[in-house]
Amino acid sequence: MPLLDSDAKGVFVISVTPFADDGAIDFDSLDRAIDFYFDKGADGITILGMMGEAPKLTLAESREVAARAIARAGDRPVIVGCSAPGLAAIGELGKASMDLGAAGIMVAPPGTLRTDGQIVGYYHDVARVLGDGAPIVLQDFPLATNVHFAPEVIGRIVADVPELVMLKHEDWPGLAKITAIRDAESRGQRRISILCGNGGIFLPEELARGADGAMTGFGYPEMMVAVTALVAQGDLARAQDLFDAYLPLVRYEQQPGVGLAVRKHVLAKRGVIAAPTIRRPGRGLSAAAREEVDRLVSRQARRLDAIG
Amino acid sequence: MPLLDSDAKGVFVISVTPFADDGAIDFDSLDRAIDFYFDKGADGITILGMMGEAPKLTLAESREVAARAIARAGDRPVIVGCSAPGLAAIGELGKASMDLGAAGIMVAPPGTLRTDGQIVGYYHDVARVLGDGAPIVLQDFPLATNVHFAPEVIGRIVADVPELVMLKHEDWPGLAKITAIRDAESRGQRRISILCGNGGIFLPEELARGADGAMTGFGYPEMMVAVTALVAQGDLARAQDLFDAYLPLVRYEQQPGVGLAVRKHVLAKRGVIAAPTIRRPGRGLSAAAREEVDRLVSRQARRLDAIG
Amino acid sequence: MPLLDSDAKGVFVISVTPFADDGAIDFDSLDRAIDFYFDKGADGITILGMMGEAPKLTLAESREVAARAIARAGDRPVIVGCSAPGLAAIGELGKASMDLGAAGIMVAPPGTLRTDGQIVGYYHDVARVLGDGAPIVLQDFPLATNVHFAPEVIGRIVADVPELVMLKHEDWPGLAKITAIRDAESRGQRRISILCGNGGIFLPEELARGADGAMTGFGYPEMMVAVTALVAQGDLARAQDLFDAYLPLVRYEQQPGVGLAVRKHVLAKRGVIAAPTIRRPGRGLSAAAREEVDRLVSRQARRLDAIG
Amino acid sequence: MPLLDSDAKGVFVISVTPFADDGAIDFDSLDRAIDFYFDKGADGITILGMMGEAPKLTLAESREVAARAIARAGDRPVIVGCSAPGLAAIGELGKASMDLGAAGIMVAPPGTLRTDGQIVGYYHDVARVLGDGAPIVLQDFPLATNVHFAPEVIGRIVADVPELVMLKHEDWPGLAKITAIRDAESRGQRRISILCGNGGIFLPEELARGADGAMTGFGYPEMMVAVTALVAQGDLARAQDLFDAYLPLVRYEQQPGVGLAVRKHVLAKRGVIAAPTIRRPGRGLSAAAREEVDRLVSRQARRLDAIG
Repeated sequence: MPLLDSDAKGVFVISVTPFADDGAIDFDSLDRAIDFYFDKGADGITILGMMGEAPKLTLAESREVAARAIARAGDRPVIVGCSAPGLAAIGELGKASMDLGAAGIMVAPPGTLRTDGQIVGYYHDVARVLGDGAPIVLQDFPLATNVHFAPEVIGRIVADVPELVMLKHEDWPGLAKITAIRDAESRGQRRISILCGNGGIFLPEELARGADGAMTGFGYPEMMVAVTALVAQGDLARAQDLFDAYLPLVRYEQQPGVGLAVRKHVLAKRGVIAAPTIRRPGRGLSAAAREEVDRLVSRQARRLDAIG
Repeated sequence: MPLLDSDAKGVFVISVTPFADDGAIDFDSLDRAIDFYFDKGADGITILGMMGEAPKLTLAESREVAARAIARAGDRPVIVGCSAPGLAAIGELGKASMDLGAAGIMVAPPGTLRTDGQIVGYYHDVARVLGDGAPIVLQDFPLATNVHFAPEVIGRIVADVPELVMLKHEDWPGLAKITAIRDAESRGQRRISILCGNGGIFLPEELARGADGAMTGFGYPEMMVAVTALVAQGDLARAQDLFDAYLPLVRYEQQPGVGLAVRKHVLAKRGVIAAPTIRRPGRGLSAAAREEVDRLVSRQARRLDAIG
Repeated sequence: MPLLDSDAKGVFVISVTPFADDGAIDFDSLDRAIDFYFDKGADGITILGMMGEAPKLTLAESREVAARAIARAGDRPVIVGCSAPGLAAIGELGKASMDLGAAGIMVAPPGTLRTDGQIVGYYHDVARVLGDGAPIVLQDFPLATNVHFAPEVIGRIVADVPELVMLKHEDWPGLAKITAIRDAESRGQRRISILCGNGGIFLPEELARGADGAMTGFGYPEMMVAVTALVAQGDLARAQDLFDAYLPLVRYEQQPGVGLAVRKHVLAKRGVIAAPTIRRPGRGLSAAAREEVDRLVSRQARRLDAIG
Repeated sequence: MPLLDSDAKGVFVISVTPFADDGAIDFDSLDRAIDFYFDKGADGITILGMMGEAPKLTLAESREVAARAIARAGDRPVIVGCSAPGLAAIGELGKASMDLGAAGIMVAPPGTLRTDGQIVGYYHDVARVLGDGAPIVLQDFPLATNVHFAPEVIGRIVADVPELVMLKHEDWPGLAKITAIRDAESRGQRRISILCGNGGIFLPEELARGADGAMTGFGYPEMMVAVTALVAQGDLARAQDLFDAYLPLVRYEQQPGVGLAVRKHVLAKRGVIAAPTIRRPGRGLSAAAREEVDRLVSRQARRLDAIG
């Protein structure tokens, strides 16, 4: 599998990790999910992210998921999330993943980092512990990590750590940050790929600001694929029309915590995964929430019909 | 002015505090804003909330704003936000506000509270320091305060503090909490009013779950008024159609920090306030953001036309 | 009263705010406390710090305390703590204090600051809102504020904000920071005064690293005065002997939260303040804690006798 | 090896994990450290705690350390720290450790827990994932975890989770919590063992309040052994005399972050471990800090001579 580089663009879907009702990993559903993401137009996938329930897997399971997903993806790129409180665990899973054929490693910072210097130093350490030039995706998600990256800090990491090839951008608000990074690049900073998260809830604006695509797991990845393509073609109006049709569900799925249960419910409803099971201590959707989601899905279908 | 009670329902708009270009409070714009909110159908207003830039006002200014807004609102209810790190400051502004004719006092918890018992104790202290049975609105906004209220903790405060009449609900996710509170009430817990915040981004679902209305400051309060009325009439489909037309802007305005600049830009654009000035250290919208908002507003107008 | 400048050294005692049993400010005890601090050799005092229960005072009360303390101190310097979540409140109390004759204003950062740039920007804003060249003391206390100042960030503020004349140093661990600042000064950075907090628990080492003295409120300020003088005379061994005699109590008083009750108990026991009352929601010492403190005080007296 | 139960008392030393200069685990030094702890009178040891640099070890290394330490300890109890952000990892290392002969498993809560109910639920989950009645030690260390346990919450876990046999108590301040737990036990709550951490800095008072001993890693474990024994014999005065002689170093070693480097420096100086190496991203002591520690150690020796 080719390594990720800073020219990456398009949609990398954050894959769920499917579980059977008893909590065991459902590898058949994982295969189907990976096929589904690529069938819907994904350019790559990312496994073992926060929404892949990575912290609920043992190291042995994480390796199995990585092996299975990478094998199934064939020659298409798979990024492996390896965030952990300690560098050793990042190195342990990261090296194993690269050996299995991963395209790159995604790392969010531990919540203990505070000063700009600590943040920059951390990505030096990550590059060192991964070694061998493994491509790094920096996940910038302050809502979850409580670590805040000023654009200049991203610039310092770009300058210092050649392995950094991509930003998974999910600061909130983050539009100004995309502009700031692209402006710095226009003044000579090394260009990196920027793929956006947050369930895609700002995708049209993010793309118009210069992002290269999306990296998130919304249950209808075809929306992200189509919106990304339309903006690339210069048709922002049509991109927004399409986006708006999905927005009520995007919004609902973006809720922290419960959002994953929404996503799995949608994927199960679509026949992608066998069961919407969340591993403990997570919980599935309440009956009231299921009704709300089903209603949003029905309304979405009607609206998509209406806009043609 | 009558005091707020637990039967309150409808829309209480979180009022902006308008500033002139030099940062002085623009009281004429404040008058116009209050008139505008009520013209658009508000049932009450809330001043000096987080989005009212309360921490940027001196105590003297806060009193002036309260006096002016309460006078302008006439016999319609005005809630005054009095959150502060110390109880003395809450008492100082709270008592002054009640003397001026406020309908109630809104208090979010300080971020230092951790255990359930500390949270319950805090609202005991707030009631004591306000005194005289001043009605209390509990602002439950973990994203901003980092204090998390379990539904049972709200139940304990309801049981212990009779002055608590309303929950400004903006947990995220929060739909299950509305259901939990209403369920507890069906089992005998004293009923309180629940008005929802978060820019209204879950308003249809919140109302369907049992909320009594909205308390937030979206630049088109007529959306909140209409959606609340439609759900009250049982027309959830029409409520959602209307809501969905506004949702792209609701989403954009809900961004932390920058959202207030969006709101003020919209209100200035609509002729409500003279200038979109944010007091320092806040910042106004960038040119790119203004274009995005203006585009969303144009699209919103077309879509409202389309749905009639 | 002369203004604080970067040559300040010695001991600035963080003054308690004494309350009567009913919670009213006890101004006679405040007078006695100020006299006591200066009688024990203090070079200045700091009022309305965190341990002065500042957030529990109304603005009106804060002004009264400042007026009384400044009058009582006469020509000796009084620093007024003005930390608040909003700049307006800092300006309101800060300007009033300077008008009353304060020597300088101490400001800790709000917990919302995250990036280095935000921190530097904040002290620009503080200087602007205080105006008129009011001397600023930066309180660096991450345990309480959750804001972390890298030494370079302090350097940037020193370079940008000429009003900054003093660091109240209470990072933990913080010894390396003193060394880093003094090293930067030896390479040309403008020198500021560094007075150390944290109840004095690292005072001998801090002074040996280049600190100019202490700014904290340990109930036996004579220890801080003597230790500072001894280190200045080059007698570190004697300074440590003396320090060690007080250390068991220093350690006990440094406990967050309960420490203030210890301090007030000691000051009441010493006849300085009439009552050890803590304003709500704080609490006084339990009987068990009082016994522990009294025991430590007795042991301390015996040990001081022993070392002569 | 016998399982830990709620009658455990005395001193369980938090073991360092020794590293060679190149960062490899130094198993010979680990053997020596374990021998040293028991030679100095420890009743048990705890490995892979925060001060055991656990997050810097791979899972494979953690297992090796556990195997080696448990084998070396023979029939004396070894507790294994298994804190991790995800339950699966806790189960993975926890089960492996119990299979290797661990006496119990220590788990601190993840920083994401907020409400009392979430905290209680978490320890249910921990017991479930460890299974087989593995004894659990709850590490209550808010300074590091930002999770605050009210005494009643500990009581709820004690009532619900029979596997909980011990509290590693390091709240700060925490003396009142010991009293509250012992009081609840006197009213019928199931008794658990309480061993205290925080480098031992409140050990005499903690023991006098009802703690059963210490679980921390101060470089002179003989102090903790002697103080615990003296208090058990009712000789608090002698216990405090001894404690006070060590207090200046206890204080210095208790500094967050740098404290571990102090501890390893002391252990290397004492010939216990070959090198004071800290694994990256940690750092060793600066020359200035080494001098400070060496000076404190010299003074400590003189003072111990003096008190006989």
